[in-house]
Amino acid sequence: MRQDLDALMDARGLDALLLFGPAQHNPAVAYFTGAAHLTSVWLVKPRGRDPLLFYNAMERDEAAQTGLPSRSLSDFPWRVFLRQAEGDEVRARALRYQAVLKAAGIEAGRVGVTGRLDFGPPFDALRLLPTLMPGLTLEGLTAHQTLLAARRTKAAEEVARIRRMGQVTTEVVGRVADFLTSQRGKDGLLVKADGQPVTIGEVKRRINLWLAELGAENPEGTIFAQGHDAGVPHSTGRDDEALKLGTMIVFDIFPCEAGGGYFYDFTRTWCLGYAPDEAQALYEDVLAVYRQTMSELTPNGLCRDLQRRTCELFKAQGHPTSCHDPGTQQGYVHSLGHGLGLDVHEAPWFGAHESNTDRLEPGVVVTIEPGLYYPERGLGCRIEDTVWARPDGHFEVLADFPYDLVLPVKG
Amino acid sequence: MRQDLDALMDARGLDALLLFGPAQHNPAVAYFTGAAHLTSVWLVKPRGRDPLLFYNAMERDEAAQTGLPSRSLSDFPWRVFLRQAEGDEVRARALRYQAVLKAAGIEAGRVGVTGRLDFGPPFDALRLLPTLMPGLTLEGLTAHQTLLAARRTKAAEEVARIRRMGQVTTEVVGRVADFLTSQRGKDGLLVKADGQPVTIGEVKRRINLWLAELGAENPEGTIFAQGHDAGVPHSTGRDDEALKLGTMIVFDIFPCEAGGGYFYDFTRTWCLGYAPDEAQALYEDVLAVYRQTMSELTPNGLCRDLQRRTCELFKAQGHPTSCHDPGTQQGYVHSLGHGLGLDVHEAPWFGAHESNTDRLEPGVVVTIEPGLYYPERGLGCRIEDTVWARPDGHFEVLADFPYDLVLPVKG
Repeated sequence: MRQDLDALMDARGLDALLLFGPAQHNPAVAYFTGAAHLTSVWLVKPRGRDPLLFYNAMERDEAAQTGLPSRSLSDFPWRVFLRQAEGDEVRARALRYQAVLKAAGIEAGRVGVTGRLDFGPPFDALRLLPTLMPGLTLEGLTAHQTLLAARRTKAAEEVARIRRMGQVTTEVVGRVADFLTSQRGKDGLLVKADGQPVTIGEVKRRINLWLAELGAENPEGTIFAQGHDAGVPHSTGRDDEALKLGTMIVFDIFPCEAGGGYFYDFTRTWCLGYAPDEAQALYEDVLAVYRQTMSELTPNGLCRDLQRRTCELFKAQGHPTSCHDPGTQQGYVHSLGHGLGLDVHEAPWFGAHESNTDRLEPGVVVTIEPGLYYPERGLGCRIEDTVWARPDGHFEVLADFPYDLVLPVKG
Repeated sequence: MRQDLDALMDARGLDALLLFGPAQHNPAVAYFTGAAHLTSVWLVKPRGRDPLLFYNAMERDEAAQTGLPSRSLSDFPWRVFLRQAEGDEVRARALRYQAVLKAAGIEAGRVGVTGRLDFGPPFDALRLLPTLMPGLTLEGLTAHQTLLAARRTKAAEEVARIRRMGQVTTEVVGRVADFLTSQRGKDGLLVKADGQPVTIGEVKRRINLWLAELGAENPEGTIFAQGHDAGVPHSTGRDDEALKLGTMIVFDIFPCEAGGGYFYDFTRTWCLGYAPDEAQALYEDVLAVYRQTMSELTPNGLCRDLQRRTCELFKAQGHPTSCHDPGTQQGYVHSLGHGLGLDVHEAPWFGAHESNTDRLEPGVVVTIEPGLYYPERGLGCRIEDTVWARPDGHFEVLADFPYDLVLPVKG
């Protein structure tokens, strides 16, 4: 949580953070500013003190709305630094970083740097900066990991926002199910009243429309993949493909708040009209593992143990797994889930390797998403919910939705 | 244009580019891949040779659809590099970059690095990389500038995509105008049939809905700002504010293709019902400068000259300008426009300073957006179109829309 940040910086020996980029779609900055419309800011967070926001003068009202102490970058005019650097842009940029750090009271020490932006320009200037500021060292990975460590546990206000996105997400999934079940099957395809097949592209357009209507954004797209494509976990499906009856569809949807805030992540697997035996069997295997895993979640449990346990459960069903058959592209090929917040994928992580010490601490929000994939057989199935490890020790799915495989369609 | 890239790399002494991040909402990568659903890739572009894409195995189908030569990152397993680095994550990452560069035939030379992602983790590893590869130097700013230099002129296919976004944008602006003019004025506010005021938040929700319906995304939000807020160029407006009659509204909309492709950028200024004299006068000043500027665009004209000329025109009308009154927050306070493409703001730039040598070369797509701002008087006005410098020497507005200030409403 944000309140842990000073202690986390202290544990990692960071005296300050220097963060770059816009406030929107940039978790490192948005964690402090909220999703304000600030197109390019610098934020200095000294350990033990409030963050200081440096903003473009045209965006002064947006900066004020963040409630953070702030300074206009017009107090640090580019032309002055460029003159001082005799026209050397890299040096001018480094001098400006130095001035901004000094304005925040940072003259030396270990400063963490990160932020989501085109990193080429700051890269050169940040390499130069320690030569201008003896006693300054810069740390990128540590900055990133420190922020992720703070973000891994969520405050009640953050959980409320994720829960609201869960309501939006399941509302949209329900509308998609209603749309599909109100069409009819014909010659193996799903067709509309006019006899034209329903395509994946049409479904995705409706998803984006409904998400926008409900105030969400969909910056990373939606997976709506059937048959072979359902068997490739990150295949998103082909827009021009007609929806087939009796074919597995993996529907994985992960929208965020408008402006780039908190995400939700959710998957169901559907067959339209009917499920062939091998699809039904695969679904039952995944659902059984999903239910078993959910029943075994324990506060502070090691994520790697959950991943290993999931591999054992799938292996016992006779499937290859990434634990037992490294590099396999059939069977259980990914990890059980991931943390979720301002990024759709963030800590804690579920890698099975010994060095993964991530745990289900109270306050984490994670996805649980076992799946099985056989692309050559045209089969893929995943079931995913987003789960909050509550402070009272319970694990709560943040948005409920039925798990049914078959969506009936008209004859 | 992309075809110029090898020559631009040669002119800047770059032997290769090493690009990072997702394919979506990341122009450095999307310029090569298109807006494929690739969540994290590396792309090596050696000078004079095809780019080579390194992808996550789960996204192999999406990688194949880019049509680029590609390699799966499963051929470069993280655990192998982590073992080789004896658990040092920074070193492991650097070793992996080295392996990827070698696989693309790069063993030394000047390599440009950039891409839009959380740059903390690659920052440390890239600083280390030259110690593993003697003869290798890394250049961030040069990489960024080289890509922007290629992107500044657009191929016909890119212009067609921007034009299509212009059609979407003006269609949405038209729907907003239709919505507003179908409401009625009452006690100085715009109200709906039920007598409730229309708020800025409601207008923005409709904008997002219509953009989604037409296949666009709105990752950077919309400016719909009235009165004082219209007088602050980047103020986006307050959702809970009711729309007032006779008050200037700056409506600046800049959506992109779904998945993070090409943008459009467009502004009109409206008064609902009627325009007070001082609003009308301000609008007429801006419109006159807009028309004069548009009539003076010439192929290969210096952008800084256009900015200076715009300052002169506004000064002659009696307004402060950023050329004559540096740091002013009243009058003409920003630059005339900017290039537009995979970023809403890209080269060429319109800064008035002598070191700005950007020109309106044939093939550039730029915004022309003069404006005047008096926040303390509750006044702000901007008129913006997106313009293509055609190879035949003409300048073409890529989407037409009326310039009227007053939107009539029912009595």
